[in-house]
Amino acid sequence: MSQLKGNALVGQSGGPTAAINASLAGVIRGVLAHRDAIPELYGMRNGIEGFRQGDVVSLLPLFDGENKLRQLEQTPAAALGSCRKKLPDPKKEPAFYEDLVARFKEKNIRYFFYIGGNDSMDTVAKLSAYLANADYEMRVVGVPKTIDNDLADTDHTPGFGSAAKYVAVTLSEIVRDCAVYRVPAVTIVEIMGRDAGWLTASAALPGAINGEGVDLIYLPERPFTFERFTEDLKTAFLKHPNLVVAISEGIRSPEGRYIGEGAQSGALDAFGHKYLAGAGKVLESFVKETFGCKVRSFELSLPQRCASHLASDTDLTEAAKLGDAAVGAAVAGKTAVMAALERKPGDVYGCEVVFRPVDRIANAIRRVPDEFINDRGNGITPAGIAYLAPLIRGERKVEYRDGLPIHAII
Amino acid sequence: MSQLKGNALVGQSGGPTAAINASLAGVIRGVLAHRDAIPELYGMRNGIEGFRQGDVVSLLPLFDGENKLRQLEQTPAAALGSCRKKLPDPKKEPAFYEDLVARFKEKNIRYFFYIGGNDSMDTVAKLSAYLANADYEMRVVGVPKTIDNDLADTDHTPGFGSAAKYVAVTLSEIVRDCAVYRVPAVTIVEIMGRDAGWLTASAALPGAINGEGVDLIYLPERPFTFERFTEDLKTAFLKHPNLVVAISEGIRSPEGRYIGEGAQSGALDAFGHKYLAGAGKVLESFVKETFGCKVRSFELSLPQRCASHLASDTDLTEAAKLGDAAVGAAVAGKTAVMAALERKPGDVYGCEVVFRPVDRIANAIRRVPDEFINDRGNGITPAGIAYLAPLIRGERKVEYRDGLPIHAII
Repeated sequence: MSQLKGNALVGQSGGPTAAINASLAGVIRGVLAHRDAIPELYGMRNGIEGFRQGDVVSLLPLFDGENKLRQLEQTPAAALGSCRKKLPDPKKEPAFYEDLVARFKEKNIRYFFYIGGNDSMDTVAKLSAYLANADYEMRVVGVPKTIDNDLADTDHTPGFGSAAKYVAVTLSEIVRDCAVYRVPAVTIVEIMGRDAGWLTASAALPGAINGEGVDLIYLPERPFTFERFTEDLKTAFLKHPNLVVAISEGIRSPEGRYIGEGAQSGALDAFGHKYLAGAGKVLESFVKETFGCKVRSFELSLPQRCASHLASDTDLTEAAKLGDAAVGAAVAGKTAVMAALERKPGDVYGCEVVFRPVDRIANAIRRVPDEFINDRGNGITPAGIAYLAPLIRGERKVEYRDGLPIHAII
Repeated sequence: MSQLKGNALVGQSGGPTAAINASLAGVIRGVLAHRDAIPELYGMRNGIEGFRQGDVVSLLPLFDGENKLRQLEQTPAAALGSCRKKLPDPKKEPAFYEDLVARFKEKNIRYFFYIGGNDSMDTVAKLSAYLANADYEMRVVGVPKTIDNDLADTDHTPGFGSAAKYVAVTLSEIVRDCAVYRVPAVTIVEIMGRDAGWLTASAALPGAINGEGVDLIYLPERPFTFERFTEDLKTAFLKHPNLVVAISEGIRSPEGRYIGEGAQSGALDAFGHKYLAGAGKVLESFVKETFGCKVRSFELSLPQRCASHLASDTDLTEAAKLGDAAVGAAVAGKTAVMAALERKPGDVYGCEVVFRPVDRIANAIRRVPDEFINDRGNGITPAGIAYLAPLIRGERKVEYRDGLPIHAII
C-alpha cells in the first residue's frame, strides 16, 4: 500500500459520553505522530451535518500540548458538537455523496475518522461503500463510543466504562444513604439502555466488590412481570428493610411492551397536560399500592453519560488508544473498518486494538448474554461481574478551578 | 465552671448528607483530645430512637487512627444510622425524659452531641430544657448538618457545600452535554429544597465561574407563573437553542400551591396506578405543549445528598471542625447551644466557630434573601454568587479500591 498524503477530518456523532473527547484526543495524537502523511486535521462541528454546511475547525493549533489534550480528555460530551443524521443509501442518492466528495477535495481530505455508535458506524459503512467505486481515494475509519455498550464485534465500547463507573459509584452511595433508616422502604433507580442492559448490569458491581449492594436488578434482556417482582421484593424484605432496585429504562412485559410506555393512558393532570411516566414511576406506584411502604424512584438520567469528573481511567485510556490507533491504521492503508477492543485471555485484564469490517457492525445490537444474568432474572452472575469489573477501574486526577472541573471548549 | 467528668454520647439524625460523617469524625477527634474529661464515646445507632432501645456502639476502638477517621469523612450518609423522631414536650411528657436520664446514668453519659438539622436541634433544645430543671448534670450540644442550608443563626450548614458542589459540577457537565446539538431543546433539572432555594441557587455557579451555565433558575422564594416562564424561555431561545433550566422541587404558584403537587389530578395510568408527578415533569409537559420542541426533565434526587466522592473540601473541613469544637465547648462548660459558623468579613473567605442558643434555632427556617435573587426572579445576583462560591471549593483525594470509593461501615 503506497502512502496516501492528505489532510484528515474528524467528527463526533450520536449521544455524548464521558469518553468521546478522549477518543478525539487520541485522534489528534495520532495525527501529530503522522504529520508526514497528514499535514492538517479538521474537526467537523456537529458531525457530518455541520461539515455539509462547511462548518469545520482546524484542530492542531488548538491542542498544541499534552496538557490541553488531557483537559480535552476530562471534558464531558462532544467537544466538536454532535448530530443524529442517518445518511442515505449511496446507490439511491449518489448526489449526496458527490457533494461530500467535492467538499473533501476542496480541503484535500484523505482521511476520515468518525467517533460514534451504531448510527455513526452506518455513516462510516455507507461512505466507505460509496468510495469503493468512486474516483477519489480516502480512508475511512470508525472510532467506537456508546455508553450502551451494544456495538457488535468489540469486547466493549469506550464511554461504557465511565458510565458503568458512574452507575456503580452512585449506587454504592445510594445504598449507604438508604441504609440509615429502619423502616421498610424501596428505592427504585432507573438506568439508561433501552435495548441492552449493560449499564444496568453494572449496578451489580458495588455488591460484588464490597458486599454492600443493590438487592434486585432487572434488564431488558429478560421479560419483566409484576408477579415475579412482588415475590422478589418479599424475599428481599426477609433480609433487610431498605431495598434498592436497579432497573433498565427498557424493561418489558413478556409480550414485549415497555413497562414505562405501557403505562401511558393519555390521562391529564390538573393543569390539563398529559402525564409522562417511565418504568421507575410505574414500579413506584405498584410498590406503593402492593406493599404500602415508603417508596421512591428516580432516573440517573444525563449524569450517567456526562459525569466526566468520575470517569474510569481504564475507559479514557482505551478511548484515546483507539483514536490514536485508528489514525495509524488508516495511514498504513486500512479503510472501511472500525477500531475495536479484543480482550486478552487470562486473569489479568488487558485489551488489544483490532480492526473489524464496519459493514458487519452497523445496525447490529449486542445484548447482555444469558450467562451474565442469573436464572431468576434479577441479578448478575460471577461471569458477568468478571466481565464488568475491570472496566470501571482507575481514576484520573481531574483538574479543578474554583471548585469545578476544567472543561476544554472548542 | 468545674470540670464535668463522664462519658459522651453522639448521634446522627434526619436526612443524610455527604458531610454528616465528617462531623462525627470531628466529634471523635474532639473526644480523643479530651480523654481526661471523657473516657468513653458511645454512638447511638439510629439516633435517639435506637438509644431508647439500648442500641449503642463504643466508637473509640473503631477509629483508632487518623486514616480511619479520614475514611469516615469520605463515607456518605449517616454511618451511625438515622431517625426521624420528634421528641415530646418535656412539660407534658416528663416520663419520656426520665427514661432517657435513667439510660444516661446507666452509662454515665455527661456529654450529648446530636448531629442534625432542624428537627435534631429541636431534640437538643427539648432535652436541654428538661435537664435545666432535672437532678442530672449533662451538657448538650447540637452539631448542624443539612443540605438545605436552611438552619437559622449560622452562615451556612455543613452538608450544604458538598451538595452545592454536586449540583454545580453536575450542571456544568449537563450544560456541556446539552450543547452538542443544534436543534431547540429544553432540559429541566429539579433540585432538592422544598422551602428554601439555597441548593437550586448553586446551579448559578457554573455560569458565574466559567461562563457556561444554566439559562434560568427558579427558587421557592419567588412565586412561579407559567406566563413568566414562557416569556423567559422565549428570551433565552434568542441567545441559543439548548436551554437548561434549574428549578427547586418546591416552586409554588402565587397562591402558594406547589407546582408539583398541584398537578396531581388523581388520574390513573394504564395499569390502574395513580400518576406521580414532580414540578419538573409538570414543566416538561408544559414546554412540550407550548413550544413543541424537544424537552426532558429529571430530578437530581438522592445523589445530591450522598455523592461524597465529589464532596467539597471546604465543607468536610468545616463539618469536622464544628464536631471537634462542639466537644471542646461542652468540656469548657457550654450546653443548650449549637455550634455555628460565622463568616469573617473581607474578601478572603473564612469562618469562625461560634455557639448559639439552640432554642432560637429549632424550627426556624432561613430562606434565600431577596438580595441574592435577581429582579426577574429567574437568576442569582453577584451577592448571591459571592456567598455561594467559596463553599464548593476544594476537593479531597478520595481513596478508591477496585474502582469504588472506600466507605467506613460502623
